[in-house]
Amino acid sequence: MADFNLMRRLAQPGESKIVLFVMDGMGGLPIEPGGPTELEAAHTPNLDRLAAEGCCGLSQPIAPGVSPGSGPAHLALFGYDPLVFDVGRGVLEALGVDFALQPDDLAARGNFCTVDGQGLITDRRAGRIPTEAGEHLTIKLQAGTSLEGYEIFVQPVKEYRYLFVLRGPGLSSALSETDPLVVGKRSLPVRPLDDSAEAAHSASLVNEWLRQAKELLAGGFPANSLNLRGFAKDPGFPLFPDVFKLRSAAIAVYPMYRGVAQLVGMDVLDAGATLDEEIVALSRHWADYDFFFVHFKYTDSRGEDGDFAAKVKEIEKVDKVMPRILDLNPDVLIVTGDHSTPALLKSHSWHPVPTLLWSPTAMPDLARTFGERACSTGSLGTFPAPDLLPLALGHAQRLARYGA
Amino acid sequence: MADFNLMRRLAQPGESKIVLFVMDGMGGLPIEPGGPTELEAAHTPNLDRLAAEGCCGLSQPIAPGVSPGSGPAHLALFGYDPLVFDVGRGVLEALGVDFALQPDDLAARGNFCTVDGQGLITDRRAGRIPTEAGEHLTIKLQAGTSLEGYEIFVQPVKEYRYLFVLRGPGLSSALSETDPLVVGKRSLPVRPLDDSAEAAHSASLVNEWLRQAKELLAGGFPANSLNLRGFAKDPGFPLFPDVFKLRSAAIAVYPMYRGVAQLVGMDVLDAGATLDEEIVALSRHWADYDFFFVHFKYTDSRGEDGDFAAKVKEIEKVDKVMPRILDLNPDVLIVTGDHSTPALLKSHSWHPVPTLLWSPTAMPDLARTFGERACSTGSLGTFPAPDLLPLALGHAQRLARYGA
Repeated sequence: MADFNLMRRLAQPGESKIVLFVMDGMGGLPIEPGGPTELEAAHTPNLDRLAAEGCCGLSQPIAPGVSPGSGPAHLALFGYDPLVFDVGRGVLEALGVDFALQPDDLAARGNFCTVDGQGLITDRRAGRIPTEAGEHLTIKLQAGTSLEGYEIFVQPVKEYRYLFVLRGPGLSSALSETDPLVVGKRSLPVRPLDDSAEAAHSASLVNEWLRQAKELLAGGFPANSLNLRGFAKDPGFPLFPDVFKLRSAAIAVYPMYRGVAQLVGMDVLDAGATLDEEIVALSRHWADYDFFFVHFKYTDSRGEDGDFAAKVKEIEKVDKVMPRILDLNPDVLIVTGDHSTPALLKSHSWHPVPTLLWSPTAMPDLARTFGERACSTGSLGTFPAPDLLPLALGHAQRLARYGA
Repeated sequence: MADFNLMRRLAQPGESKIVLFVMDGMGGLPIEPGGPTELEAAHTPNLDRLAAEGCCGLSQPIAPGVSPGSGPAHLALFGYDPLVFDVGRGVLEALGVDFALQPDDLAARGNFCTVDGQGLITDRRAGRIPTEAGEHLTIKLQAGTSLEGYEIFVQPVKEYRYLFVLRGPGLSSALSETDPLVVGKRSLPVRPLDDSAEAAHSASLVNEWLRQAKELLAGGFPANSLNLRGFAKDPGFPLFPDVFKLRSAAIAVYPMYRGVAQLVGMDVLDAGATLDEEIVALSRHWADYDFFFVHFKYTDSRGEDGDFAAKVKEIEKVDKVMPRILDLNPDVLIVTGDHSTPALLKSHSWHPVPTLLWSPTAMPDLARTFGERACSTGSLGTFPAPDLLPLALGHAQRLARYGA
């Protein structure tokens, strides 16, 4: 991983510009034996040229065999070892719905569920109620629950999932979860996980809220009860602009990615909802920042759909905007994914991710095109994703020499 | 890095011979897009044969993106993780001028500077005075300063740079620097950086020396004052011959490299100033040692000059002596650089360094020639430089089996 002490010691302010372009879930697999991957099948003359002129490799987001969530996968690309910098699920849920989490807020991921007459859980996901039904229930909970001296936020996420945030003094995230993880059992009460007064106090607050919430939901169906998991607070990570001495901006459409960038202290720029608008935002703010994280979501979405051909098309859309980025004269342009989402698997996977680093100071290697197999011949080898950012700083000539 | 406990446990004395041949700053870049690097452009039939018969890779001296100084880069080749075994700048400066540093000596790097009538620094490098002028001033300081009970050494380094060493009892290197690092400010007094009596005592000694030195320089121009940076003592590293069970010798012309070898306990052999004389020294001492570090400087020098063609010629000179080394029948011959110094960049760089390990027990890989791109196809991959020495011990069959 990036050695933050070393980076703090060596990183220098400067004029050079770095662009980290992330195609979410870009890595893939052949959809049929012997065939190309999504990236290999795509017609990508611009990315191929960048790969040929730059250096390439395969990036490993977390650890061998481990499929990453979006939060940890992006932290890795930002140089943070996701095994060290662990973000709680509650915080990730808050980031995912663009909730402006404050430093002392306690956040949790909630699930609506179905219970029987004895209070035993019969469906942990309440029959996967539609998102609109979930929204309706969160409005009811927001209006009908209160805890003296504390603010409560209940926000819909998707289907049976919601976000719960408690704001006020002396809150601890050292709390056990309520979901027994199997049907046929009762929701568990929240217990403090350490001996602090804060944990005991927080547990009693949350239990009281759960009591009120269950009362409000009772009688409804199928979502007639609820659980809370992954209690967490803002982890207070070292700030990206401080560690790497980069004035840093994020251009991303989806809340989760804006949120992770914000968590490490990047400015989140207003961009529209399209790739074109993202590139316009990049141009407009070019003079104001040294580092740009640009996020493109739809490669992952089409991979999750299992739609190989549609994912290929999304990659080709990205290829077409590369000349517009190059026209801005970046010193370093990285194109990679946060993880693989092969259409074959319809989900995030553990496969290392094709990565190219283009720069006038890059040593061109044997990778002549941008694809999984081409990148496996590249000089970067198969490398831990958090190594990428320091490498970019090197190519941007922003790191002082180590030792005389 | 080399696991020193593991090495101490497994390393065995033996009869086999290892040669580590270091072309300083060997790694390079194409001087024009699409062209070869210095090493690729050089006609190197002998190195190509060694690469084809041996195994190859790209070695990373410090960390991704980080350009190394010569001291740390050599420590890495000797198996010492340079991020763990940190040598202070004062010690590196002493090594660089062949000063025989004793264990309790306090060393610092000095810079002559220019101050105005109010004592504010107007030029931190005293107009980069010629080396002869710097020499003259160090003679003046050596003769004209004294501290009771202590020996003082003031030696020229280059231009405005000098070495300051204090010898005597109870010295600490926990001292702040005097250089404010910007012009328009006064030199800072030295402050102790911990609560020890030694640090307080050392600070007052150094401040008194600075007072005397400034008095001597006042009235001269442009070097009418001075600063001290990087106070350091011999770090007392584990000794290379003990850890790796190798009777070890260094053959190097330049003081810095002889110094680093000495710092880890190698014998430094008397060799002349030419590559031919270095190889003669290697032959003469062949029976006396198990491990030879042979250093060749001029690849780095020509890289720093930005002279691609001249660096190519230096590489070709090295190629020509390879048969003479092979005639000695080494069990392992490594050819690598301590870092890259691309003529394109005219400076040390962060690019990983082509490396070949030739041995009768090496598994020949896909690298058929010795060059950056050929080595990127090698079976060693892109690896941390400190891994090389244990690998050499393996091929020299000097490591016991781990476990039954």
